[in-house]
Amino acid sequence: MPSLDEAMEAAGAAAFVMYASSADPNFRYLTGFLTGDQMFYIKKPGEAGVLVVPQMEAGRARDEAACGIITRGEAGYFELLEEEQDPTRAAARMVHRLAGGDILVPGNFPLSVARAYEPFGTVTPDSSTLEGMRAVKTPREVGAIRAAQEVTNGVMAFAAEILRHASVAGGDLVHEGAPLTSEGLRREMHCWLLRRGYAAQETIISCGPETAQPHNTGSGTLREHEPILIDVFPRNEATGYYADMSRTFVKGVPSPEVRALYDAVLAAQLLAEGMICPGITGAEVHGAVVDLFAERGFATGAEGFIHSLGHGVGLAIHEDPYLSPRGDVELVPGHVVTVEPGLYYPGTGGVRLEDIGVVTKDGFEVFTNYERTLIL
Amino acid sequence: MPSLDEAMEAAGAAAFVMYASSADPNFRYLTGFLTGDQMFYIKKPGEAGVLVVPQMEAGRARDEAACGIITRGEAGYFELLEEEQDPTRAAARMVHRLAGGDILVPGNFPLSVARAYEPFGTVTPDSSTLEGMRAVKTPREVGAIRAAQEVTNGVMAFAAEILRHASVAGGDLVHEGAPLTSEGLRREMHCWLLRRGYAAQETIISCGPETAQPHNTGSGTLREHEPILIDVFPRNEATGYYADMSRTFVKGVPSPEVRALYDAVLAAQLLAEGMICPGITGAEVHGAVVDLFAERGFATGAEGFIHSLGHGVGLAIHEDPYLSPRGDVELVPGHVVTVEPGLYYPGTGGVRLEDIGVVTKDGFEVFTNYERTLIL
Repeated sequence: MPSLDEAMEAAGAAAFVMYASSADPNFRYLTGFLTGDQMFYIKKPGEAGVLVVPQMEAGRARDEAACGIITRGEAGYFELLEEEQDPTRAAARMVHRLAGGDILVPGNFPLSVARAYEPFGTVTPDSSTLEGMRAVKTPREVGAIRAAQEVTNGVMAFAAEILRHASVAGGDLVHEGAPLTSEGLRREMHCWLLRRGYAAQETIISCGPETAQPHNTGSGTLREHEPILIDVFPRNEATGYYADMSRTFVKGVPSPEVRALYDAVLAAQLLAEGMICPGITGAEVHGAVVDLFAERGFATGAEGFIHSLGHGVGLAIHEDPYLSPRGDVELVPGHVVTVEPGLYYPGTGGVRLEDIGVVTKDGFEVFTNYERTLIL
Repeated sequence: MPSLDEAMEAAGAAAFVMYASSADPNFRYLTGFLTGDQMFYIKKPGEAGVLVVPQMEAGRARDEAACGIITRGEAGYFELLEEEQDPTRAAARMVHRLAGGDILVPGNFPLSVARAYEPFGTVTPDSSTLEGMRAVKTPREVGAIRAAQEVTNGVMAFAAEILRHASVAGGDLVHEGAPLTSEGLRREMHCWLLRRGYAAQETIISCGPETAQPHNTGSGTLREHEPILIDVFPRNEATGYYADMSRTFVKGVPSPEVRALYDAVLAAQLLAEGMICPGITGAEVHGAVVDLFAERGFATGAEGFIHSLGHGVGLAIHEDPYLSPRGDVELVPGHVVTVEPGLYYPGTGGVRLEDIGVVTKDGFEVFTNYERTLIL
């Protein structure tokens, strides 16, 4: 896995240039700076790089960022803007002064900025150097994700307790005298997380027919005897690292079909978690789960097992490496991945169980610490 | 302001192509589909466009999206991937089949995808067609932002009540027997918003010296006699539209310097809100505030008034039009903007007051409905 300096050398680039906000995990990884506005980051080989910030962000950036800071004014932006009368052309000239020649950029570098830079040097999109670097976590990063998962175990227990203690009226779950809805339970979970410094968005709490669509967020009153699928991926507000977890519950009695899905998904998860170790590829683990499902009569394709087995988690909720048919990267210690087999059948419903853990020198350490119980 | 079809015609493009997730407001605006994963959207002139989704999203996308849907499989992606053995090249060929020739793309279109498409046709970055379209809100959009601001008025009142009823011990504010911190108040505000269907992130609750940095999120115990700056921008979880609001309070007695900042900022806000009407530019309104501050001895530059007067708000928290020195767009009915003069002096502190409203046919309708009170 090449470093950014090696990738620059291979591309014959004088500098690496990024134009992004901290919504971009690569930006947050390299600069450590939180900003909703896009900024240029320019790094030459052997240096920590420099972030070009508006004057109003200079004090905060000098306090918080993990790289050098200069203001747009110091970088000559406003004189260039006066000459060019076009923000993108002025920015390209400013970047050229700092970068000095041909540049390497992330694959998602904005085309408009690349075109404005081309008069000053070639612009080479990098394929995946930063993604490869981010995939292998440092011990500090592993600690942040483990801590996030500990809180996530807690919020799943909180949700399960509400389901367990709900009463039932006409098939609807009832909590504190009112119908227990997907929306209501989601908000209680999000508040619980917020109080502990975690932000969660679009937590899936789907029920019954909704569960057959793996990313259906869910809405309306939760029902007894139906699968209730909860998939929650909180992010620590300070560190920016995510955790990720799914469980499927039934309040009451599951149908034999849902029971069979659950048993197969659980067997698949245990198989996969036992296989993960350095040297195996994501495709091999995914393939073993496909085979297990096939042996039990469950298809892979338009229904049945319709998504990948897992994905990396870090500053992005989905990142390298992937446990998928095209996951040809050999796993190494420090890779943090989810293991989330699922089976989905319109008419029957869906079941997913998702754990997260880190590849160790001789196996896989699961961070998820929560019972696997279908029936509440 | 050209439409997307007019921009395609001007560029000689066969189609408009976007590759984004709903984190990109342009994507959400055109497709109405919520997804964390990036997808291709291809629109030919006169058509609503088509979104290319993974199989697992097909059902949800057909239910929820405001455009046509085809799966990657239906678009031939997997055969192309087999041939190319490279996801980006395979995607470019798939897009070419659907787009049919030269393409117009947003300015932030990923460079790597543009390079992969170039063998099939020219790729022209659009300057700001979608941004101009999004800037002028429909009545439905105005209603969504007004509704968001109503809830935001409520959460500001909630926060002010907590400050008002806090006790003081050794200069620290105390709430329910414990020190009242920025972090604690932020979490209470975020839970209050969540229960009403709004998500807020990085709400600024800064105090004392922190307030001199306009985007300092704030941390630690809130203090009496110091400015407390609250800037909150909640987003409706269903509609995706934001509101935005700032107030500055003092619990106790402000210094004469802070009082003077407050009086000047309030005068600037009233002046600006009275000036906004169709035909005026953002630069003119910003300039009038610069002049008012100068008359009162407050500078514009590295300290004093160090940011723009305002910005558009919609599916993005910062969008066109801008009330700034370079805001040369004439305002028209349907533009929704903030008016947020602020003054910031290290050693003294900062004061900002931010309202939001819509340009009407003869003026400016302010949505913000909350007292402007310095002293709580």
